[in-house]
Amino acid sequence: MSDALEPVVKEIPPKAADLSAWYTAACLKAELVSYAPVRGCVVLRPYGFGLWENLQRELDARFKATGHENAYFPLLIPESLLTREAEHVEGFAPEVAWVTQGGSEVLTERLAIRPTSEVIIGTMYARWIESYRDLPILINQWCNVVRWEKATRPFLRTMEFLWQEGHTAHASADEARAETLAMLDVYREFAESVAAVPVYAGVKSASERFPGAVETYSIEALMPDGRALQSATSHDLGQNFAKAYDIAFTDRDQTVKHAYTTSWGMSWRMLGATIMVHGDDRGLRIPPKLAPIEVVVIPILRAGDERALEVARDVTRDLRTCGVRVRLDERDAQPGWKYAEWDVRGVPVRIEIGPRDVDAGTAVLVRRDRARGDADHKRSLARTAIADALPELLSDIHRTLYAQARAFLETHTLRLEDRAAFYEAARARAGMLDIPWCGRPECEAHVKAQTGATTRNTRPLDGDDRTCVACGEPATLRAYFAQSY
Amino acid sequence: MSDALEPVVKEIPPKAADLSAWYTAACLKAELVSYAPVRGCVVLRPYGFGLWENLQRELDARFKATGHENAYFPLLIPESLLTREAEHVEGFAPEVAWVTQGGSEVLTERLAIRPTSEVIIGTMYARWIESYRDLPILINQWCNVVRWEKATRPFLRTMEFLWQEGHTAHASADEARAETLAMLDVYREFAESVAAVPVYAGVKSASERFPGAVETYSIEALMPDGRALQSATSHDLGQNFAKAYDIAFTDRDQTVKHAYTTSWGMSWRMLGATIMVHGDDRGLRIPPKLAPIEVVVIPILRAGDERALEVARDVTRDLRTCGVRVRLDERDAQPGWKYAEWDVRGVPVRIEIGPRDVDAGTAVLVRRDRARGDADHKRSLARTAIADALPELLSDIHRTLYAQARAFLETHTLRLEDRAAFYEAARARAGMLDIPWCGRPECEAHVKAQTGATTRNTRPLDGDDRTCVACGEPATLRAYFAQSY
Repeated sequence: MSDALEPVVKEIPPKAADLSAWYTAACLKAELVSYAPVRGCVVLRPYGFGLWENLQRELDARFKATGHENAYFPLLIPESLLTREAEHVEGFAPEVAWVTQGGSEVLTERLAIRPTSEVIIGTMYARWIESYRDLPILINQWCNVVRWEKATRPFLRTMEFLWQEGHTAHASADEARAETLAMLDVYREFAESVAAVPVYAGVKSASERFPGAVETYSIEALMPDGRALQSATSHDLGQNFAKAYDIAFTDRDQTVKHAYTTSWGMSWRMLGATIMVHGDDRGLRIPPKLAPIEVVVIPILRAGDERALEVARDVTRDLRTCGVRVRLDERDAQPGWKYAEWDVRGVPVRIEIGPRDVDAGTAVLVRRDRARGDADHKRSLARTAIADALPELLSDIHRTLYAQARAFLETHTLRLEDRAAFYEAARARAGMLDIPWCGRPECEAHVKAQTGATTRNTRPLDGDDRTCVACGEPATLRAYFAQSY
Repeated sequence: MSDALEPVVKEIPPKAADLSAWYTAACLKAELVSYAPVRGCVVLRPYGFGLWENLQRELDARFKATGHENAYFPLLIPESLLTREAEHVEGFAPEVAWVTQGGSEVLTERLAIRPTSEVIIGTMYARWIESYRDLPILINQWCNVVRWEKATRPFLRTMEFLWQEGHTAHASADEARAETLAMLDVYREFAESVAAVPVYAGVKSASERFPGAVETYSIEALMPDGRALQSATSHDLGQNFAKAYDIAFTDRDQTVKHAYTTSWGMSWRMLGATIMVHGDDRGLRIPPKLAPIEVVVIPILRAGDERALEVARDVTRDLRTCGVRVRLDERDAQPGWKYAEWDVRGVPVRIEIGPRDVDAGTAVLVRRDRARGDADHKRSLARTAIADALPELLSDIHRTLYAQARAFLETHTLRLEDRAAFYEAARARAGMLDIPWCGRPECEAHVKAQTGATTRNTRPLDGDDRTCVACGEPATLRAYFAQSY
């Protein structure tokens, strides 16, 4: 298996010129990831893992606050078990990595490395659930999954990736639907209030549905190149898996019924969306709540005057005591070189302390979200006021990043009424194309064949419309069409 | 691949009669684990995962406090890469699960599911390290690993398990050795002050060394059946992996040198040790710092008097606000049934609130560490005093569990001076047999063949001894011998 060669990055190219080249270069130069010696795989380096840890902490707290518990299920799934839900296995078989040998033993039955865990978790639920008293079961798992894949795009497309997958079982269809929607909303709220990425939440079309689901919901973000990126999904599985894996319970009325199940997941893809949405020509701009380092402190030393170092240490210690994720950069290098490096890595706030600051009892706070020429890019502050000022400063940086991304999404969401304009915009990756849609798979397939765009998600019609902009048949839904990652 | 059948548990058998049966029954009945539909694998259920989360949180904080960062490396390792360190591959080859197919493609090179990650991490370090300025690298990874295995003993022996593996690279042999010992001490301190499990730390003999290591250190706990359980290991890898994977750096003097590396790991085995050491005939006794639920609150309702429920809710809410991990059990069941269930699950403190307590403004606190007849098993306390009393009560429970385990270890650590008595004690699993030892592999092999016992770890001679108790040759070390898990 040949090694996916890691591109050599000298400079980060301009973002607008070639988003893909910018993205790969930014991920590598910021040391988020390295390419691994296995095709299709990346290593999540400490700075990248720091992003993942913050995502985990924020999302996990939301899962727990909504009554979910974590558990861990096996990596390997016997083939005979995987094949019980027909649509599911058909959807995933082309992507499965198979274990066929253990030590020197050749296995009589192949084992799949989990591409997702409905099968193994459903099998356990069938054993654990007997009565309505055992319901609901609300479990989440943080784990790695493998889906056979030859391309390597950090966070967006890799053979192995990290994610969380929630799996729940309920006594009624209504309750399962409510869970599916509640978790979709957790994802939406997380994307907006933690990653500062605005998204559209809605229902997937049949062709984009999870194999084996009754209904799939998604949140979709818009990338700077006008393509959509599906950032999380939530599936109402109805009784499909319950029937295939025999998840049954005795209800209050003493009859035996199949349970209703759901599953929902967000992967490190969300980090890819975050990087692409917020970055600029200098590198990453990490939203503060995900930032492994919220503040970097850089002392400016002059020959014969190293007082700034001691002050910088004090400031760092104070901020750490206040719970700020702060790093002191005391490496032997020029301040300007350090500024550029921390700009690449997207640290939200830089604190510079030079000899004049030492004398004046001040420090200079620099915002990564602002362009260099902006009036409030830098400001000088009394050192004693920094700790108090930081929470609001970090919040404001979050709001700025969100507002910029929201403005982009809004200006690139086009409500089109004309068929030719729609096809043209779809081909041109003009953004989220919001149209009344007939809901027919044939119509979606035609748009895809002609333009490369598909439905991202759909919602009910919101007015007295009318006809499908894509084909002229009666509309039944509103849909966002876009080309996608 | 046939399913490992999950034993059916009605009652937990007495611990002293059959530790193995007690252990399996306690793990299942407390709902820590379930047997999975893959031979050799278990599911970590929410209550078991709660233990793991607490272990992770405590250990991770210690790693970060000592300068380590987390990262994530790929699950799959190409065979050609695995085979570069000869001893290492020889040691692990019999335990490797091999991926040979991806989708419908048959691979030209097999991929190993990581049994441990020295190989893949070493490969990355070789790319990342250029100069002495890049050293040390101090990285930890929390992940799953697979080692081919047909038996299923929850936490102790499974095909897939969860663990952490630290991997560091240094510029000098001394620094690598110091890291190895520092992490060994982190493990010892964790075992004692979090899991309340006393351990012996020391050096492994050559035959027990990690494949590819220069020196392996371990912490060893003693189980109630007189067998030792290796609970964590720390390896000084010298330059072996650096040479095999070409981890080289330019030193201050401009010469190119190979780095010195270490690795160290603790797995969910530590939970197995904790369960076995502390449990009693009623089930688990979980040390408070690992307990997913520190306190369970049980209202006692009488027909026509359900006031205790409201009070129990208030108490629960108050404790939660104080940061206590507390669960209110308001299920429709008899209090006595609930007491027994939470005893099985080993919750350190139970709070009972009945009608008389409602009137008196009190509650009854029951300690899980105490036997039922003990004077301080239960005490009544003003409800307003509970939150203040709990931290000390939980600390005292930790101390009690540790003291009991320590007393057992001490009374079952035998300093023997007579060869026949040593062989007899080794056969009888009398505990940790502490003897002056010659250090010769032949001697160790002979003891193992005759008794089943091996060296657990060794340390320098501490006096003017003398001769090896096992064989009569000159002693070079002191060693703990024991049969082991």
